[in-house]
Amino acid sequence: MSATLRDPEDRRLPRIAGPCGLVIFGVTGDLAKRKLMPAVYDLANRGLLPPAFALTGFARRDWSTDDFAQIVHDAVREHARTPFDERTWEHLASGFRFVQGEFDDDAAFDQLARTVADLDAERGTGGNHAFYLSVPPSSFPVVCAQLARSGLSKAPSDTWRRVVIEKPFGHDLASAKELDEVVSQVFAEDSVFRIDHYLGKETVQNILALRFANQLFEPIWNAHYVDHVQITMAEDIGIGSRAGYYDGIGAARDVIQNHLLQLLALTAMEEPVSFDPEALRAEKEKVLSAVRLGADLDTTTARGQYAAGWQGGEQVRGYLEEDAIPEGSTTETYAALRLEVDTRRWAGVPFYLRAGKRLGRRVTEIAVVFKRAPHLPFALGATEELGQNALVVRVQPDEGVTIRFGAKVPGTAMEVRDVTMDFGYGHAFTENSPEAYERLILDVLLGDPPLFPRQREVELSWEILDPVTAHWATSGPPEPYRPGSWGPRSAEEMLARDGNTWRMP
Amino acid sequence: MSATLRDPEDRRLPRIAGPCGLVIFGVTGDLAKRKLMPAVYDLANRGLLPPAFALTGFARRDWSTDDFAQIVHDAVREHARTPFDERTWEHLASGFRFVQGEFDDDAAFDQLARTVADLDAERGTGGNHAFYLSVPPSSFPVVCAQLARSGLSKAPSDTWRRVVIEKPFGHDLASAKELDEVVSQVFAEDSVFRIDHYLGKETVQNILALRFANQLFEPIWNAHYVDHVQITMAEDIGIGSRAGYYDGIGAARDVIQNHLLQLLALTAMEEPVSFDPEALRAEKEKVLSAVRLGADLDTTTARGQYAAGWQGGEQVRGYLEEDAIPEGSTTETYAALRLEVDTRRWAGVPFYLRAGKRLGRRVTEIAVVFKRAPHLPFALGATEELGQNALVVRVQPDEGVTIRFGAKVPGTAMEVRDVTMDFGYGHAFTENSPEAYERLILDVLLGDPPLFPRQREVELSWEILDPVTAHWATSGPPEPYRPGSWGPRSAEEMLARDGNTWRMP
Repeated sequence: MSATLRDPEDRRLPRIAGPCGLVIFGVTGDLAKRKLMPAVYDLANRGLLPPAFALTGFARRDWSTDDFAQIVHDAVREHARTPFDERTWEHLASGFRFVQGEFDDDAAFDQLARTVADLDAERGTGGNHAFYLSVPPSSFPVVCAQLARSGLSKAPSDTWRRVVIEKPFGHDLASAKELDEVVSQVFAEDSVFRIDHYLGKETVQNILALRFANQLFEPIWNAHYVDHVQITMAEDIGIGSRAGYYDGIGAARDVIQNHLLQLLALTAMEEPVSFDPEALRAEKEKVLSAVRLGADLDTTTARGQYAAGWQGGEQVRGYLEEDAIPEGSTTETYAALRLEVDTRRWAGVPFYLRAGKRLGRRVTEIAVVFKRAPHLPFALGATEELGQNALVVRVQPDEGVTIRFGAKVPGTAMEVRDVTMDFGYGHAFTENSPEAYERLILDVLLGDPPLFPRQREVELSWEILDPVTAHWATSGPPEPYRPGSWGPRSAEEMLARDGNTWRMP
Repeated sequence: MSATLRDPEDRRLPRIAGPCGLVIFGVTGDLAKRKLMPAVYDLANRGLLPPAFALTGFARRDWSTDDFAQIVHDAVREHARTPFDERTWEHLASGFRFVQGEFDDDAAFDQLARTVADLDAERGTGGNHAFYLSVPPSSFPVVCAQLARSGLSKAPSDTWRRVVIEKPFGHDLASAKELDEVVSQVFAEDSVFRIDHYLGKETVQNILALRFANQLFEPIWNAHYVDHVQITMAEDIGIGSRAGYYDGIGAARDVIQNHLLQLLALTAMEEPVSFDPEALRAEKEKVLSAVRLGADLDTTTARGQYAAGWQGGEQVRGYLEEDAIPEGSTTETYAALRLEVDTRRWAGVPFYLRAGKRLGRRVTEIAVVFKRAPHLPFALGATEELGQNALVVRVQPDEGVTIRFGAKVPGTAMEVRDVTMDFGYGHAFTENSPEAYERLILDVLLGDPPLFPRQREVELSWEILDPVTAHWATSGPPEPYRPGSWGPRSAEEMLARDGNTWRMP
């Protein structure tokens, strides 16, 4: 398995995948159309796919390959990030195949196996194939079983077979283990690529550059100087049409278990020996295993459910009035946790995580909030308007880094006030940021796994979350909060107990 | 003496001077017209002067008070920073007086004494008077003697008399002491205000806020993390019409002895107990007394003289061809020093100071350049375009702070490149920055001395510089350099010996 980040040649030359095919299960789904198909096209257009590349769709629909090509075409036209190039398209489309069938249909999978073999012969895909399971977890067992039965999961020598799965990786520790049981019976751990698309984001990877390529930040990145850390993933929309997926899952399982705990891990982990997959994952696992919940979950967690109200000049429904939400649902649309990280570096520093829908603004950020200077040799009152220093990694939107610090207010007295300095990803680089899925699909085809969480990380995250969801299950309904606000009062109170307040990002 | 920076009331309320008068010697000079008179008007316009304020001019010219008022009027119209307000002007001008005379004319100073006494009676200036010696140092003895003889220097009880002097404070340690001898016979040290207008600049004072109001910077502000410091004062112009002043003085005496060593002191000093004048000056003196020259001045200093050439599309004369420069003058128009600061905080960290005329750009800045991260867990080559982290205080123009650090280049590989984040004084604050002279004149009238160097600081600075100028006096002519370049080759070599290069600011 190539460890691309360490290979000096790979940096200078574009990282181009070798001959291979990608099979997508669930091509009629939203993710496939909005993200996966456009990402495949963009990779091709950037010259990062091999000439010998094939894309096979598998679905129930009674489509021809031309129908499938039309679907991809429409998706690319609507969602691709690079311009439409006829020649790129023509070549890419010549490697399209479609196989129709149900997941429990042996004949369909036998047909898929023949298609894959034909591609190796006709297209030169060399026996290397990735299977992207863009399907509900409940279908994982049958698809995996079929891939095994039909021989598709088994790589002939000098070839590879990989499987790509999307969150949710279960809904608690037990179900995550069950799910892994199913997958690991068919694929070895190093052939399983779990997609957490947040890890494909440039700004998330930039956390590593920021921390470990610089001298400036790491010396103050610890409990001596950091007061607390706030990790926020706020959405301003409601659940929309996702009731079927969301209800019974809620904010904690939907994004804290994966995205936010991964952000915490990257923020809090020690420096890895290298960015080799093993080295990086070892540090993430180490820090996740050091994460500790508060003793009293009533005061160190908070949850809420958005009520009906007004947002952005528009009247919006409450969660309980959304389509297809069962009466009296106690699913939380806002969740906040106060965690600590029991390491020498972080002991005593609260890590506050929050995620929610129908909040004031769509924003994902990591704010490292520093202690006040130990002594202020200024006049009384001169620092009244001075807050705490902060370093904020803006994950989305408006990707970048902001530092908040105190500067002298112009004038004839010494008065200090907060100012910010800013680095904007979009302004600093002319290079286009690849979309997270582009990066991650390419990594799958390259067999480059540092950005994919390992099963152990998934399990560690559930170990953190399980006591919380269990506690909530016995604690009555979540607290309602106003749409467009920053969540329930209990979340404010959680921080107020530490003398802190949530940022208004 | 009020210690304004400590007084909480002074921060909220504007710092307004009490009843007093200001006497300017040298009102026909360039500084008086371009800076002092406009600053007095701007202070008045901002409401920071008392109603009972008087401005008296003293000069050889046979002017009436109306003539003097016209001169001030023209200077204000041309150079003031606040809009012209008729009522402000009317009131201010009603306190104008003019006294005609030579500095050795007893009668003229007796007349000045009567004028000042009249002002106390008519204008209510309360016996408080500051004497601004905007005259060459060679005139200090006679003016001071006259102020003593006429009784003007002696403050009746509950009043004050202060003297303001401008650099150069001598041209070496011995002459600085002589000069001080003259002044200190007439004025006590706490009544002597030595103007280093750089200390009146907002960005210079912001060094104190930056370092001591924040938690972010001080932990890395030491030899563990800092590789070296570069302090630059570059001008793009030549000496213009200042040959008479400049020749025989040169860049080191003209600006390194005062401005640049003061910037070094503020950058390198320990935290003062408070910003009381005594506490602040004590720290500056402490660090200046720890400054050490290199053992071999041939390799740890550099100097140059600008040659004729082209700059900005214009043909410019060399220093030796400028008007009134004596043939074969060895005055340096560029000077650079490599200093070390022998303290626990800075041991082993080079401080490079440079100042010059006809350089690439007009800029004054302090660049704290950090060591590389001790280990880079990145792929070989991934950090090839990563320089050293730097924190740059931009003193002028475009006042602000820039941080340079490494960020991930967008793309599918982990490559790190330098980016900058920026804080601009002009953008961050709606408040107007007072001009340096506004701030400093107000401080004189308030008797607030933290921003004025004490005689001991002046002497310490000469102690640093004297061996350098003595060495240069016996080392042949300075090295010519091209106009618009960044100075002589020997200055590049000086840094190259340490493996460093000058910034191109």
